[in-house]
Amino acid sequence: MPYSAQRILLASRPVGWPSEDNFQLVDATLPDPGDGQIAIEVEYLSVDPYMRSRMRDTASYAAPVQVGELMTGAGLGRVIASNSPRYAVGDWVTGVTGWCSHLVTEARGFRKVDPALAPVSTSLGVLGNTGLTAYFGVLDVCQAKAGETMVVSGAAGAVGSVAGQIGRILGCRVVGTAGSDDKIAWITEELGFDGGFNYKAMDDYRQRLKELCPAGIDTYFDNTGGPLTDAVFPLLNLRARVAVCGQISQYNSEQPEMGPRLFWHLIVKRARVEGFLVIDYADRFKEGLAQLAAWLREGKIKYREEVEMGIGHTPKAFIEMMRGRNLGKMLVKVRP
Amino acid sequence: MPYSAQRILLASRPVGWPSEDNFQLVDATLPDPGDGQIAIEVEYLSVDPYMRSRMRDTASYAAPVQVGELMTGAGLGRVIASNSPRYAVGDWVTGVTGWCSHLVTEARGFRKVDPALAPVSTSLGVLGNTGLTAYFGVLDVCQAKAGETMVVSGAAGAVGSVAGQIGRILGCRVVGTAGSDDKIAWITEELGFDGGFNYKAMDDYRQRLKELCPAGIDTYFDNTGGPLTDAVFPLLNLRARVAVCGQISQYNSEQPEMGPRLFWHLIVKRARVEGFLVIDYADRFKEGLAQLAAWLREGKIKYREEVEMGIGHTPKAFIEMMRGRNLGKMLVKVRP
Repeated sequence: MPYSAQRILLASRPVGWPSEDNFQLVDATLPDPGDGQIAIEVEYLSVDPYMRSRMRDTASYAAPVQVGELMTGAGLGRVIASNSPRYAVGDWVTGVTGWCSHLVTEARGFRKVDPALAPVSTSLGVLGNTGLTAYFGVLDVCQAKAGETMVVSGAAGAVGSVAGQIGRILGCRVVGTAGSDDKIAWITEELGFDGGFNYKAMDDYRQRLKELCPAGIDTYFDNTGGPLTDAVFPLLNLRARVAVCGQISQYNSEQPEMGPRLFWHLIVKRARVEGFLVIDYADRFKEGLAQLAAWLREGKIKYREEVEMGIGHTPKAFIEMMRGRNLGKMLVKVRP
Repeated sequence: MPYSAQRILLASRPVGWPSEDNFQLVDATLPDPGDGQIAIEVEYLSVDPYMRSRMRDTASYAAPVQVGELMTGAGLGRVIASNSPRYAVGDWVTGVTGWCSHLVTEARGFRKVDPALAPVSTSLGVLGNTGLTAYFGVLDVCQAKAGETMVVSGAAGAVGSVAGQIGRILGCRVVGTAGSDDKIAWITEELGFDGGFNYKAMDDYRQRLKELCPAGIDTYFDNTGGPLTDAVFPLLNLRARVAVCGQISQYNSEQPEMGPRLFWHLIVKRARVEGFLVIDYADRFKEGLAQLAAWLREGKIKYREEVEMGIGHTPKAFIEMMRGRNLGKMLVKVRP
């Protein structure tokens, strides 16, 4: 039998900040799954900063979404029909579903989620791409070591909150920045960050970082870019590592923002800046997920999810995530 | 017997571009060398971009020169008196002499130069710090590999000209930028660069780089920084490496220059930017010098020296080097 689905299309390309008008909810009828295919009823959708770049008409590391096409993104759901030997009806699976309530898809590219391990929604967050991003970023790119000082921007976000906690587990002094006092309270009082500040409540980031990082900064996990990065650079220690995970402060600019040239600091400190993407670590996801799940069980990593109800609110959830509403991971529950 | 010496002091700190007024030539009388000391008659002085940062009242990787103090810098000379078992009168030695005609110094920190190997002046250039900077920058930081495309800024300078030739030896397509047509003719016609352009004769660096680097840019050996770097970044290939050796376009600015924020490109390309200093490779200088000397003998590396005559012209030589007068290595012959 054919399946009816709700799907959210990119209706037009945003210029500057996106608005809900840039998206359109449509009904569709899906075919039965063919050989090797499965039908999925989506339960949760993930909204993430990288999606902003897919809305542009320029290739970045992936092709853009075309106007009129399904918005891309990760989702989690149950298999409701299967023509694949790998999946049975009732299995929880996660992968790139796009912004939709149901889909029929090739089974490959999805992975099974074990509901006994943790709440299934974590497969889109702390036990999914955002947790893995934090894991490989801190371990491989930051190469954070015990006794070092680590700064995390966007520290109350899905990636930053986990990155900072991993830094703590490794024995770093961890300082986070975020855009509200509530976020700073959460990361310092609940997540164990050693310090942090609300960048919206002050101007002199460099002075505040100096106070919070009296021994300088050995590694910087950067989710935001912009003026905070400018303040971090002069405080970098010898052989510091900067992991560029995201540049959310820049994603809605139509022209590159201007900032002070920073490379001289890299010579003085023999420091390194490296961009990374979690997809490049696919062959180590198993290792990362096992470690993250262990830390979760041991209570060493805490997480928070903010859930918007109803697939129709996915554009709103995305925009509010970009505006920094959420503590931790922002999700959409497809059916309230 | 005491030695008389001519010494050039930093008379005042330059603001913006340095002028000869910032320096003062004085006569001095030196004591006899004590235990473990040697007296050196300096033959050549090296002038290098890094010296500009030592004229500022801020520590970078080394302490600043104080006003009224001897200007720092590398020199080459002959031992004219020795109280060190390591050196005999007549030996050629190189090390940090400062801008002077004679000095009495601890013997340690200097190294002997073999005049049979190559003209002794090369110990301040291609077989000295600038050659070694190119060597470790290209091999260790750029990690240049056969078949890759390498861009070198400041390509006709002491470091850039050698860096590009090493890139060629390794099998890279090498494109250089410099500030005159003569320089471009030299690097492309004599040094074997695959292409290059005079950045002072055009505005659209990005378009020109696209033409010269049809397969993109795998590694960038950066001596200048500034707008050329802005043009390189969008053309970086996946896992590109940027070695930040110098930022000469910025050294005379009193405030950090502004430029477009570039880190987004690092994520898209999973690229790396790393600053380095040759002094960090001191334990491998022997390896580097042996290889550079071999390449020189085999005719695989060519070099050029521009020699200003008379110690009194050292400030002028420094300023003209900063302005880009020289092809290759800029030196001062102390006694014409």
